Amino acid sequence: MKIIITDDYTELGKITAQHLLSYMLVDNKRVNMAITAGATPKKVYEYLLPYVEGKDYLNHIHYYNFDEIPFKNTDKDGITLRDLKTLYLTPAKIDQNQIHALTVDNYKQHDQKLLEDGGLDLMLLGIGADGHYCGNLPNTTTFEDFTTKVVCDKNMQNLLSPLFDNKEEIPDYYVTMGPRSVMAAKNLIMIANGKHKAEIVKEFIFGKIDRANPSSLLKLHPNLTLIIDRDAASKLDTVLVKQLSKENKI
Amino acid sequence: MKIIITDDYTELGKITAQHLLSYMLVDNKRVNMAITAGATPKKVYEYLLPYVEGKDYLNHIHYYNFDEIPFKNTDKDGITLRDLKTLYLTPAKIDQNQIHALTVDNYKQHDQKLLEDGGLDLMLLGIGADGHYCGNLPNTTTFEDFTTKVVCDKNMQNLLSPLFDNKEEIPDYYVTMGPRSVMAAKNLIMIANGKHKAEIVKEFIFGKIDRANPSSLLKLHPNLTLIIDRDAASKLDTVLVKQLSKENKI
Amino acid sequence: MKIIITDDYTELGKITAQHLLSYMLVDNKRVNMAITAGATPKKVYEYLLPYVEGKDYLNHIHYYNFDEIPFKNTDKDGITLRDLKTLYLTPAKIDQNQIHALTVDNYKQHDQKLLEDGGLDLMLLGIGADGHYCGNLPNTTTFEDFTTKVVCDKNMQNLLSPLFDNKEEIPDYYVTMGPRSVMAAKNLIMIANGKHKAEIVKEFIFGKIDRANPSSLLKLHPNLTLIIDRDAASKLDTVLVKQLSKENKI
Amino acid sequence: MKIIITDDYTELGKITAQHLLSYMLVDNKRVNMAITAGATPKKVYEYLLPYVEGKDYLNHIHYYNFDEIPFKNTDKDGITLRDLKTLYLTPAKIDQNQIHALTVDNYKQHDQKLLEDGGLDLMLLGIGADGHYCGNLPNTTTFEDFTTKVVCDKNMQNLLSPLFDNKEEIPDYYVTMGPRSVMAAKNLIMIANGKHKAEIVKEFIFGKIDRANPSSLLKLHPNLTLIIDRDAASKLDTVLVKQLSKENKI
Repeated sequence: MKIIITDDYTELGKITAQHLLSYMLVDNKRVNMAITAGATPKKVYEYLLPYVEGKDYLNHIHYYNFDEIPFKNTDKDGITLRDLKTLYLTPAKIDQNQIHALTVDNYKQHDQKLLEDGGLDLMLLGIGADGHYCGNLPNTTTFEDFTTKVVCDKNMQNLLSPLFDNKEEIPDYYVTMGPRSVMAAKNLIMIANGKHKAEIVKEFIFGKIDRANPSSLLKLHPNLTLIIDRDAASKLDTVLVKQLSKENKI
Repeated sequence: MKIIITDDYTELGKITAQHLLSYMLVDNKRVNMAITAGATPKKVYEYLLPYVEGKDYLNHIHYYNFDEIPFKNTDKDGITLRDLKTLYLTPAKIDQNQIHALTVDNYKQHDQKLLEDGGLDLMLLGIGADGHYCGNLPNTTTFEDFTTKVVCDKNMQNLLSPLFDNKEEIPDYYVTMGPRSVMAAKNLIMIANGKHKAEIVKEFIFGKIDRANPSSLLKLHPNLTLIIDRDAASKLDTVLVKQLSKENKI
Repeated sequence: MKIIITDDYTELGKITAQHLLSYMLVDNKRVNMAITAGATPKKVYEYLLPYVEGKDYLNHIHYYNFDEIPFKNTDKDGITLRDLKTLYLTPAKIDQNQIHALTVDNYKQHDQKLLEDGGLDLMLLGIGADGHYCGNLPNTTTFEDFTTKVVCDKNMQNLLSPLFDNKEEIPDYYVTMGPRSVMAAKNLIMIANGKHKAEIVKEFIFGKIDRANPSSLLKLHPNLTLIIDRDAASKLDTVLVKQLSKENKI
Repeated sequence: MKIIITDDYTELGKITAQHLLSYMLVDNKRVNMAITAGATPKKVYEYLLPYVEGKDYLNHIHYYNFDEIPFKNTDKDGITLRDLKTLYLTPAKIDQNQIHALTVDNYKQHDQKLLEDGGLDLMLLGIGADGHYCGNLPNTTTFEDFTTKVVCDKNMQNLLSPLFDNKEEIPDYYVTMGPRSVMAAKNLIMIANGKHKAEIVKEFIFGKIDRANPSSLLKLHPNLTLIIDRDAASKLDTVLVKQLSKENKI
């Protein structure tokens, strides 16, 4: 994997946005990107927006969400798509036909749709302090899973609760691209910032490939770039990381 | 993964050779291939030879071995390179500077060399009835390993024994690209023929990702093609395989 | 340009077919190919057929014709598509939805369609003894033309006459991809065989870029492979060609 | 060709720098870029510098100059390399072994060197008001030329004179990549800003392919992006340009 350590969170946003722009500008052919919502990418989208908003030479870029937590008993967008729209898709004025929603209704066809659309060129992923990525939390999906539905037990509902103002809307299940579907993307970019991510970042790089840490699997991807700020890198021996990068053993 | 089932072993050889030729002909830039010795690829090389021998428009193709079993106490080529030379490199008249030997002496630098050479564009792999690939046998390497040395205990030496006319030459260790190094290749082609491979082929496609079956990991590679003959496919439900291929869930 | 000189016409067929197969096998994404009818590619398709016929792992390959000479006052396929079907598309059992006909009715939309389909990955072209390729004959299209209609004067109709059993069907115009459209393809393969092509092959490689020899422009393409047999190469100084190839000045 | 019209020169600098960064970030393999000196790219490099300076994850990027005007009777860098160093290479702290100077001494080997280095992935070019690019001025090189030496007659020496403080140093010849060498690059980006470029930009897009306007040839390149500011676009019918872009006829 390629590891980039940025000075701070602002630089992480800039460098990551540059990487996204790279895939957008390097060719005129359709580009398919699955992008992450959440707190980590906020600066990424802030920086990206002026380069994308209203640029008709970027209408070959197509956007996908890679998981979705629905609101129970309503038809409105789920949490992931709602947040992606707020953070990026709406202010960037992305056309409806460039947005491809993964939902609880179409998740069974998601992998086939991705194949027919030409596959994902890029996934932008965050990593949770518990090692989760997309909706692959510890003890939910297995390494063999493609896009799948995860049933929420009481524990999971408690975990999801802070995301819901109206607790009646906490769902009984959510959907996510599984490990097999994520590994099928041509390129992965994983981002992390802040001291609270320092331990899992170290574990991600140096730990075992193990179901207890779902993200551990992704270090096997042939085209993975990890972009982290100095805080998230604070438990790494950066001299060692540099040496192993040179030796192609990381 | 993409699965191709051929009528018989002869067609497997032809189709696999075509795939190798594809990487050779599609571009003029340096192409790096790690190729397999052993029984399975015999027909592949037979078919490939007339297309390669003496063709100076293929001198941008570079060849690597991905494991090596040395002869103890001698300087001669190890078993893998010896067999690759016999099967292909010598009759194809490949120039010395297009052959890059992995040996017990240079294995620590192998991953760095691959990086500096531009990475492997293609690996052609066999799969053992026990699920091994390269020198990754059950209970030898771990999923986290790069190119590494494997110490041979008595069991392993018994396993290797049939390869050696002179039992004095059975080595105390061998070297192999590990799972991390193999997953870093841009494309993987795995081949299997014969009824004795039918069970492991089924296990490879449908089984768990598990250290007891080293090859199981490779199904996570984003660019994997599995080419098998009808015998090796005899335990597969081919209608199901076709359906899952269409659904991009295999 | 890359120049391959084959022993004879049979080897030209094999090597060219290998090149076409390369683009078919190296990736699973849609591949768009515009292929040539006429006498030169006969052996190419003969050799290609068994690798393509009935192979459902090749249904991502799409075929286009690059010119069309219609029959006057009838609805039947034009000469180019008719010949492509006879030589290759029908015996290879290519599905209708993988065949994209350029016709006198849709030629104005052809360039836009190519863009929307992802562009041509490959064009297989012949070269005429007069330096023509596709329907770009001397004094017909200009270097600035995209896909266009060529009005047939008396001379041109005489030229076309041998292609028509019923002289009433000789058309008043034909359509062709022009120089700009051809140069937009990602890869070009040009083939020529026989002593009657030796002079134009020499002219193509060493002559001026000039409208009197339409093909002369194509040597500017960054990814051009010229495959010719020994007869078509008989007026070349092959030692010089080899030297210039090494120096990247050809 | 893809045409991007920016609001002003500052935005041209930003968007062009983004394009350069795209090629730098999208892959880890060696990337070869030939970049332009002169006035037009000033803002490009200003914007690019902070993304490149001291970034060791960009040490796979290699830089080339595409022409050179030497100082007569001295050993110092020629005008192009001197300017590239001042504008970009020195402030960006690019390592010596990533800089590949084309000089009057090595120009005969330049095309071969490019081939052996893997070819140019990108050329960043300006366009002169007279239609020149690199050192291809009207009535100097021909469309058939590779990298070549141009002898300076009195006229040319007058043209070059403003570049020289010491008129004794005006050379008798200069070197440049010719049309064939430029067309061999995988991607071309051409930039122009200011009202004084409006006429040649219009001519470049809509004019004939003609030796009197050397740049006219480059519109045949399959991967050409033209980035111009509103002033340089002021003689274009932008509605027509948009329509032709959609129709893939520009």
